[in-house]
Amino acid sequence: MDALFWLGIVGAVIAIGFAFIQQRRVLKNSEGNDKMKEIAKAIREGANAYLKRQYRLVIIFFAVMTAILAALAYIPWIFGAPGLVNEFIPFAFLTGGFFTGLAGFIGMKAATKANARTAYAAQQGLNRGLRVAFSSGTVMGFVVAGFGLLDIAAWYLILHYVFERGPEVIAPVMLTFGMGVASMSMFARVGGGIFTKAADVGADLVGKVEENIPEDDPRNPAVIADNVGDNVGDVAGMGADLYESYANALVATFAIGVAAGYGSSGLLLPILIASVGIIASIVGTFCVQTKENATQESLLRSLHRGTYVAGAISAITALPLTWFVANNTYVYVDGVRVLSGMAQNVWGIYGSVLIGLVAGFIIAHSTEVFTSVSHKHTKELAKSSERGTAMIIIGGIALGMKSSAIPILTVGISIIISFIFSGGLRPDDPTIGFVAFNAGLYGIGLAAVGMLATLSVTLAADAYGPVADNAGGIAQMAGLPDEVRERTDALDSLGNTTAAIGKGFAIGSTAFTAVALLVSYVNIANDQLIAGGVVPNDAGWALNLQLTNPPMLVGLFLGAVMCFVFAAFTIGAVGNAAGSIVEEVRRQFKEIVGLREGKEGVKPDYAACVDICTKSAQKEMLRPALLVILAPIVIGAFLGPEGVIGLLSGVIVTGFPMAVFMLSAGGAWDNAKKYIEKGRFGGKGSDSHKAAVIGDTIGDPLKDTTGPSYNLLITLSSTVAIVFVGVTIAISQLFGLW
Amino acid sequence: MDALFWLGIVGAVIAIGFAFIQQRRVLKNSEGNDKMKEIAKAIREGANAYLKRQYRLVIIFFAVMTAILAALAYIPWIFGAPGLVNEFIPFAFLTGGFFTGLAGFIGMKAATKANARTAYAAQQGLNRGLRVAFSSGTVMGFVVAGFGLLDIAAWYLILHYVFERGPEVIAPVMLTFGMGVASMSMFARVGGGIFTKAADVGADLVGKVEENIPEDDPRNPAVIADNVGDNVGDVAGMGADLYESYANALVATFAIGVAAGYGSSGLLLPILIASVGIIASIVGTFCVQTKENATQESLLRSLHRGTYVAGAISAITALPLTWFVANNTYVYVDGVRVLSGMAQNVWGIYGSVLIGLVAGFIIAHSTEVFTSVSHKHTKELAKSSERGTAMIIIGGIALGMKSSAIPILTVGISIIISFIFSGGLRPDDPTIGFVAFNAGLYGIGLAAVGMLATLSVTLAADAYGPVADNAGGIAQMAGLPDEVRERTDALDSLGNTTAAIGKGFAIGSTAFTAVALLVSYVNIANDQLIAGGVVPNDAGWALNLQLTNPPMLVGLFLGAVMCFVFAAFTIGAVGNAAGSIVEEVRRQFKEIVGLREGKEGVKPDYAACVDICTKSAQKEMLRPALLVILAPIVIGAFLGPEGVIGLLSGVIVTGFPMAVFMLSAGGAWDNAKKYIEKGRFGGKGSDSHKAAVIGDTIGDPLKDTTGPSYNLLITLSSTVAIVFVGVTIAISQLFGLW
Repeated sequence: MDALFWLGIVGAVIAIGFAFIQQRRVLKNSEGNDKMKEIAKAIREGANAYLKRQYRLVIIFFAVMTAILAALAYIPWIFGAPGLVNEFIPFAFLTGGFFTGLAGFIGMKAATKANARTAYAAQQGLNRGLRVAFSSGTVMGFVVAGFGLLDIAAWYLILHYVFERGPEVIAPVMLTFGMGVASMSMFARVGGGIFTKAADVGADLVGKVEENIPEDDPRNPAVIADNVGDNVGDVAGMGADLYESYANALVATFAIGVAAGYGSSGLLLPILIASVGIIASIVGTFCVQTKENATQESLLRSLHRGTYVAGAISAITALPLTWFVANNTYVYVDGVRVLSGMAQNVWGIYGSVLIGLVAGFIIAHSTEVFTSVSHKHTKELAKSSERGTAMIIIGGIALGMKSSAIPILTVGISIIISFIFSGGLRPDDPTIGFVAFNAGLYGIGLAAVGMLATLSVTLAADAYGPVADNAGGIAQMAGLPDEVRERTDALDSLGNTTAAIGKGFAIGSTAFTAVALLVSYVNIANDQLIAGGVVPNDAGWALNLQLTNPPMLVGLFLGAVMCFVFAAFTIGAVGNAAGSIVEEVRRQFKEIVGLREGKEGVKPDYAACVDICTKSAQKEMLRPALLVILAPIVIGAFLGPEGVIGLLSGVIVTGFPMAVFMLSAGGAWDNAKKYIEKGRFGGKGSDSHKAAVIGDTIGDPLKDTTGPSYNLLITLSSTVAIVFVGVTIAISQLFGLW
Repeated sequence: MDALFWLGIVGAVIAIGFAFIQQRRVLKNSEGNDKMKEIAKAIREGANAYLKRQYRLVIIFFAVMTAILAALAYIPWIFGAPGLVNEFIPFAFLTGGFFTGLAGFIGMKAATKANARTAYAAQQGLNRGLRVAFSSGTVMGFVVAGFGLLDIAAWYLILHYVFERGPEVIAPVMLTFGMGVASMSMFARVGGGIFTKAADVGADLVGKVEENIPEDDPRNPAVIADNVGDNVGDVAGMGADLYESYANALVATFAIGVAAGYGSSGLLLPILIASVGIIASIVGTFCVQTKENATQESLLRSLHRGTYVAGAISAITALPLTWFVANNTYVYVDGVRVLSGMAQNVWGIYGSVLIGLVAGFIIAHSTEVFTSVSHKHTKELAKSSERGTAMIIIGGIALGMKSSAIPILTVGISIIISFIFSGGLRPDDPTIGFVAFNAGLYGIGLAAVGMLATLSVTLAADAYGPVADNAGGIAQMAGLPDEVRERTDALDSLGNTTAAIGKGFAIGSTAFTAVALLVSYVNIANDQLIAGGVVPNDAGWALNLQLTNPPMLVGLFLGAVMCFVFAAFTIGAVGNAAGSIVEEVRRQFKEIVGLREGKEGVKPDYAACVDICTKSAQKEMLRPALLVILAPIVIGAFLGPEGVIGLLSGVIVTGFPMAVFMLSAGGAWDNAKKYIEKGRFGGKGSDSHKAAVIGDTIGDPLKDTTGPSYNLLITLSSTVAIVFVGVTIAISQLFGLW
């Protein structure tokens, strides 16, 4: 059976190969005239400069963390004691960080090479533009899935064949890999998110509101920074983020599968589903095209077709895969080798995968209903702008909060059903047993895997948005005909909705993954306590897992409030950085003679704005990231593992609706503004439009910085808690309270 | 010992008597000239009309609920079976609702009689104005505490002496009383909150933003509605709300005290603390006065002096009370009468009371730091308005979210400490025992009691704000000299901060009360399951209280999302209602000739706006209220008691920081606007000011409708869950899953 892990490598190679082919195809297109080439180059250089700088800071962080992990692993070992973490942990952490950064980097490279090409292709028609932008999105989509699968399968194969370790050792190594991934994504998402929104908000506040010049006007000093931001935030940041969702779904499911007694099969099944998902996604990408005279609706339909086809293929193929794995998974009962519980429950386990797939579609659809102008909510929001700025803001807040209901209900119901389907309840036994309980939770992990199986095509649909956005910017700056801008706008507007959908997938799958990680933490902490001499009760628990246990309750409070403080830090960071941009842009308009009037040969100092964004993003991303990394360690030290369990739960249950709220409100404001710009409620320049622009600006940090970071807040705090469980238990026992 | 409950009645009578004296003193002042009298009368009539209409709707609700409770109590009894709830429950529910409504009504009466009198007194000086406004606030403060104490002591005495029931029967009756209180407060808070903010937002949007006329200008058709709103929302609604906090803190502490084995002493101690708190508060009120040439700071200091003196007296007297009760509380161990555990732990139990008092001051101070212009946060927020509307909104959101950290940390630490102090841990016993656990939780309840002991004076400082606000409105409309308006503005601005503090107390104490209610639910549900034949494990639990138990986890998710949906409903309600006002005001300005120009004899149709607000508030308050009442019943039916425990916890941990966020953000926006109006950053009429007005408008529903309703969301869902626990367990067992 273990040899089948090579199929993961095969799937990964296919994905990376396909990404390579797509990239070649994109590069075949022309970048257009010299002006377009020049702008594209400026964007590319700004993006590269930012990423280089970000990686420099992140390397320091990774060096420190790796040193700490190495000390935990090797110092006790020098003294002949077992390490506080196992010997592979430091490497796992490093590789996780490295591949996350690499996936984001490659995706961004692809995007920065595709923007001018999309603008050029859009000159020839809408479908051509869509094909180029979408192809460059597929590069990101397949690189993310390919690397995810490659790393996890490779780690498994190396530890299994080279070092001959069993699943019990491999699972914690994988979880540390997941922590490395989550750390890197946190920096990429938050740093990129601050950069992109500082530039965007700053450019809009002075350009659109004060100077009354159009978006992406070359006179605006922040316009290049804005376009760079799309690449470092919405492409590199998002790629890292979804790589994290994908990798940690596999890792968390594996860890729970081991606890459920499924051994390596616990990982094999997700890997096979993911591999087939890649093939399904490739088929899906071929379904994405549209007619030249396509409407917004038919564009969206063509993207939907891609994800539906991929989803259907995954759904169908998952059944034989589950059947095969289940009927080849053996356990030892009293020394006798027998088929595991999986074999009696093929349909149930398959059902869990299916539930995840379906839940993904429901969440995506719900996001669309709340953020797309094809539905009433956003239309009504646009209309409320007629009653003043305050009303569109109040309306957007209410809309966003309401939109959280369906995704959370969907995940809640899916958790219950997949838990039951996968054997979490044993009706003949009133106490829920250890193994059965974990078997049920394994199903919850599988739901996350099912939801993310077709990630490549979803992510492609998501990543093409910023490329189209950039293309529009280049078209505007290079003075291409209006119809080009109209076409890229059509692509971009759709991108708002697909971006919201992509983020919905990320946060939805994270809710499942987080439950699996939480239970992994519980299992690991419990084992450590028992190993440390704490006597378990007769259900096997050394922990007091009662929700009403004060450290648990207080942990819950702290987890919830952490979501608010994290938001304050990141939203505040965008506010601060955007404020600096506002002042820089105002300064340039005041000091550079002829800039406002667009005098021939007068150019703003674009690089100054790029530089301000870069520095601000670096400075401001540290505080929220450290909050997330330190909280589980500090709270673990004071309140013990029960406090940490509360903390993680609090983060999950508050962070999830908060994220949906922010994503929907931001998406709806943005689309309401675009809707008005098409001539409704007074159109461009009217008071309604001004109100909508303010709404859009407020939504920017919510939907592109803070909202999409919540899934990282959740997984990073969970994986940190898991990796440092030994340390925090040791410290908390010094206090001796709990 | 039981005779000492009469001291509760004595305290209550003193409070009500003092309120009566204060009201007489207010009435001695003149209402000013005819114009002032006329305006005051219009406000009074509008407020009475609203309250009448609200009570009419609420009576229907109470009739239906009482009928359901009566059916549960008496129908089984007719058939010779024990009632699903005990026979006093329907009456307890009714009295709770009645007295809540009455407290709000009396407080509002006092406020509507004091507004013109405050304006008149302010003509003679700032201190005179403060004394009248504050005296009318004390009427509300002492009526609330007096009724709270009266009802609870009276119920105890009646059930004990007339019906001869023990604490085990009395506690659930009290909890139902609490549910009646919470239901009524929910309607009062949400209905009043929608009314007041619809009028305020609507008046501002057209008056200040579009027509550029000052606040409270008599030409604005919504101006009377706005002033009525202050009374029905900020006075009657808030009074009902704090009555609820007060009553449920006593009730929840009692219920936990019974579980801890303290019997009637569990209620006696809080009642004695509350009675002495009333005396302390009376002393405190005499410390509130200021010099004529007082600054904002010295005004705030004089209010602080009142609360500090009252707090100090309470803190000192609580020790002998605790000592006395502890040394007179006996339990039977193996048939032998011995002193209860309280006696060995006087200092610890007293410590819990003290912690609550201190926590209250910390929360109040933190609220002040984030919302008052005497501190940097609000000043910086005001400054950010120079960078545009979007920046002050983004900044306010970040400020509000950050402000949640200290109150939640304070409550978290207080929970842990008061739990430990009151004997929640037994270091000699690794498993936390039943009784010890509840003893610790009793301490958490006592912290709430400690925090609310001096409620009368805190509430007085809170309730005087809307009176000053109304006085300012009357001064403006009646054309009194500018210095009068300046004085009432000084009083009003301070009222913003004291209002935020009052709401901070309400939500902070609710966090403690909610924990006590949650554990009461757990205890009661557990007993019911065992009575129904479910076999408990050897720790005595028939429930699976593990946080990782899927129904519990899903309940947590649902509780968190309920906070978001509740916000969406209430914020959306204000948006809708304010929208109707905007259109009505625009219509009047368009259709009534000479109104805009202030032509002699031309008057707007004030009544039309009052009517729209009344109708909207009635219509829109039902949906959020029903959500809160039905959620614990429906989720209990589907997910069983474990799901309900999750739900309640989710509501508590998400609702608390959410409330603080909303209260602080709203308060800070309001004060930032006032700060700019004093001439900073361009002053009135500048772009900064316009930005700040929009911020203030957005903050209005957050700080006065949704934010302060969260404590009711928490206690109402908890008490409903407790009262209907039998019913939901019966239904959930039909499904047989959990």
